[in-house]
Amino acid sequence: MIEVPRVINLGLQAFADAVAAQGAAVVHVEARPPARGDPVLVRALTDLYSADLEAANAEVVRRLDREVSYVVGVRPAKDVIPGIGERMILHAGPPIAWAAVCDPLRRSMRAAVVAEGWADDLAGADRMLAGGKVALAAANEHDTVVPLATALGPGMPVWVVDNPLGGTRAFAPLGQGPGDVAWLGRESAAAIERLVFLREVAGPKLNTIVERMGPIDVFAIAAQGVQMGDDVHMRVQASTNLLLRSMLPEIAAVDDAVPLCAYLSANHLFFLTVAMAGAKALTLSAERVPGSSIVTTMARNGTTYGVKLAGERRWFVADSPAVEAALFYAGYGPQDAAPDIGDSAVLELVGLGGSATAGSPAVAAFLGGSMADAARVTGEMRRICAAESTRFKLPTMDFRGTPLGVDVRKAVETEVTPRVNTGILHARDGTGQIGAGVATAPLRVFQAALLALAEVR
Amino acid sequence: MIEVPRVINLGLQAFADAVAAQGAAVVHVEARPPARGDPVLVRALTDLYSADLEAANAEVVRRLDREVSYVVGVRPAKDVIPGIGERMILHAGPPIAWAAVCDPLRRSMRAAVVAEGWADDLAGADRMLAGGKVALAAANEHDTVVPLATALGPGMPVWVVDNPLGGTRAFAPLGQGPGDVAWLGRESAAAIERLVFLREVAGPKLNTIVERMGPIDVFAIAAQGVQMGDDVHMRVQASTNLLLRSMLPEIAAVDDAVPLCAYLSANHLFFLTVAMAGAKALTLSAERVPGSSIVTTMARNGTTYGVKLAGERRWFVADSPAVEAALFYAGYGPQDAAPDIGDSAVLELVGLGGSATAGSPAVAAFLGGSMADAARVTGEMRRICAAESTRFKLPTMDFRGTPLGVDVRKAVETEVTPRVNTGILHARDGTGQIGAGVATAPLRVFQAALLALAEVR
Repeated sequence: MIEVPRVINLGLQAFADAVAAQGAAVVHVEARPPARGDPVLVRALTDLYSADLEAANAEVVRRLDREVSYVVGVRPAKDVIPGIGERMILHAGPPIAWAAVCDPLRRSMRAAVVAEGWADDLAGADRMLAGGKVALAAANEHDTVVPLATALGPGMPVWVVDNPLGGTRAFAPLGQGPGDVAWLGRESAAAIERLVFLREVAGPKLNTIVERMGPIDVFAIAAQGVQMGDDVHMRVQASTNLLLRSMLPEIAAVDDAVPLCAYLSANHLFFLTVAMAGAKALTLSAERVPGSSIVTTMARNGTTYGVKLAGERRWFVADSPAVEAALFYAGYGPQDAAPDIGDSAVLELVGLGGSATAGSPAVAAFLGGSMADAARVTGEMRRICAAESTRFKLPTMDFRGTPLGVDVRKAVETEVTPRVNTGILHARDGTGQIGAGVATAPLRVFQAALLALAEVR
Repeated sequence: MIEVPRVINLGLQAFADAVAAQGAAVVHVEARPPARGDPVLVRALTDLYSADLEAANAEVVRRLDREVSYVVGVRPAKDVIPGIGERMILHAGPPIAWAAVCDPLRRSMRAAVVAEGWADDLAGADRMLAGGKVALAAANEHDTVVPLATALGPGMPVWVVDNPLGGTRAFAPLGQGPGDVAWLGRESAAAIERLVFLREVAGPKLNTIVERMGPIDVFAIAAQGVQMGDDVHMRVQASTNLLLRSMLPEIAAVDDAVPLCAYLSANHLFFLTVAMAGAKALTLSAERVPGSSIVTTMARNGTTYGVKLAGERRWFVADSPAVEAALFYAGYGPQDAAPDIGDSAVLELVGLGGSATAGSPAVAAFLGGSMADAARVTGEMRRICAAESTRFKLPTMDFRGTPLGVDVRKAVETEVTPRVNTGILHARDGTGQIGAGVATAPLRVFQAALLALAEVR
């Protein structure tokens, strides 16, 4: 046998091309200096990779991966959420003042003010909000997560989710469903009516159902959902249906179940906020671990994008980005899109959403249509995660676990930031949802978090 | 560059091995004489590949692939099934006499006789059946399909499914659910009670629900189910849940829905018989096309395995095989297994079941656990099918259609026969289901069907 030359090329693609042009076998390996060689970031990375963060990170990952979340009730926010004020609205993302609030969230807040009965109409609601008569607060600072442009008033019902191993309790609103609804940035009469329906009808009945069923294991359902094509963020259809079939006998037993069933039947997104509350109950436990480089809060308010590390009280904030890999409904495009918004990125922190995209044909449809497109998103998440989920397994990757535990060091080093599957709202005219896609977290917040962590140590 | 020898080897593996041992590159191609070179079969194959069957086959495939099936009601069998007698039981597979009926089907028949009120107890039922006081008939000869060891009496409710493009109507019983039930070969008091419940409670209420909903498109649901990991035979969980969520408002509107909901909530197999009736409505249309080599009936009664070709009234029959690629429940093994039984193989004729296995993580668990094991089953079906489904798409195969239209010529030529995903029942002691796996249809029935088709022409 005659040996032909075989070459491994590191770094510049041009060298590999030149070898291949000679007819020899060449393997090209991508290689770039970490953090593009920025001296300040490289020093921080060097310090933090030398520092012994591994024990703290392992404990954070263990909590995110192994603790469990149970739905135990559906209660009015004012009765259960710590620190929620009488005239307060909780919103997604970092704290924000009315003047900076984006259009779809303003509409949702006006709808909430009317639904709470604080104003008679939208104009009155706007005056109250602009006049500072309604307190605004970040849901995340009240152990709560809310999707997209949800404005959560104290009268609204929320899922109550316990993590008994971590000793934490978290909250998320009932899903408002698709269509003409406030969380998508609508402030129509129908959107306000849906809020009243959730408060007066769905909330109390679902509480009865949950109390009769006993605690519901959120991630046991989500894990089955992942086997059935859910990323459990953009797509939650399988998980929703599993939950509803398990609820059926108790649903049938409540008085006058027809309006509740009409709402459930039309709401393929019903499980989304259940999963979010479950994920928040895990991150609340994980964030108690000091000295870790794992992200435990990641949330957007439509104006700014914020992250926190485990053990850190500070938000690191940058402008909220556009949703890039996106499919728009007919007649809409990037020029119509509000920036990335919502607390649902908490799902990406526990191995769902972007991390689980490789298993979701429905999400693949938003990314170019092939399962290879979907696998790429999970692959990017794997580059920056510390571990793999032991409960969420991807059939399309031979049942390998989804990536879990976003490590700020890896994000800064590789300049890869989390991929978050999300809906897109209209930026200006109150149309509501106009598409969906994958948002890439801004690198700057990860760089800032890294530098702060390096300073502390 | 120096050229090294490169070899393509056809047929015998030993030659390829010898080349490889010399260090040269070799590609081995499997090649065997068709039908192992049997002169009679080869002559029939030669005739039938020369004969112009393509137009007939294309029409059969078009009907199986493009016609549509709608659930329009749930009615007592005696009111809708053509030719069902007053004291008749329909069973799976080819016609069979009591003396030849296998143990689990005998148990199911006795349970049915008691549930119908024809005998007071199992002993009395056995005497009636042994004494010829109850007519036995193949469900397939009454436009009906029944799963596993179902014994369908005239009082039992059936899905009524219309194929308006083909002008056909087909029937299948309501699913009895998992556990202690007659279709799995149980004859306990609970199994008989379940039959009475279906007749007295579930049937009438489901009929009301279906009539209020309007026609239900069976394969629109099944196509979504395939995207969610159903093979729509062994695994129908996603399809079941989709159907139930769509039914929710009407379920809530019926009187006293709790017992119905308890049954639905515990029955992840509920969609199985809906899909079977839908498939039968297609094969009833397809089988009207004369002079085709496509299989339009494939069914087993636990003793014999029968197939029919489109345009043929004759059954071609052989002994029913064991279920080979099987996973048994703890404590059971092949020695406990009844032979392959049930009409559910009708699903494999329309692109579901074995054909859709590549997309089903849950079925893969029965086949060794990897998705490659599942892909192999679909690959075998592709070798013997005439076309690919335009409605059932496999995400794991880049959304390629499932194989559809089993061509008896290809089966005989390659000695590959259809792979049918199925449950396994205990052979003797009335335990019920003891496992599940993939059954391979016996080659002899395909050879007999091929020879008959060659004779006719």
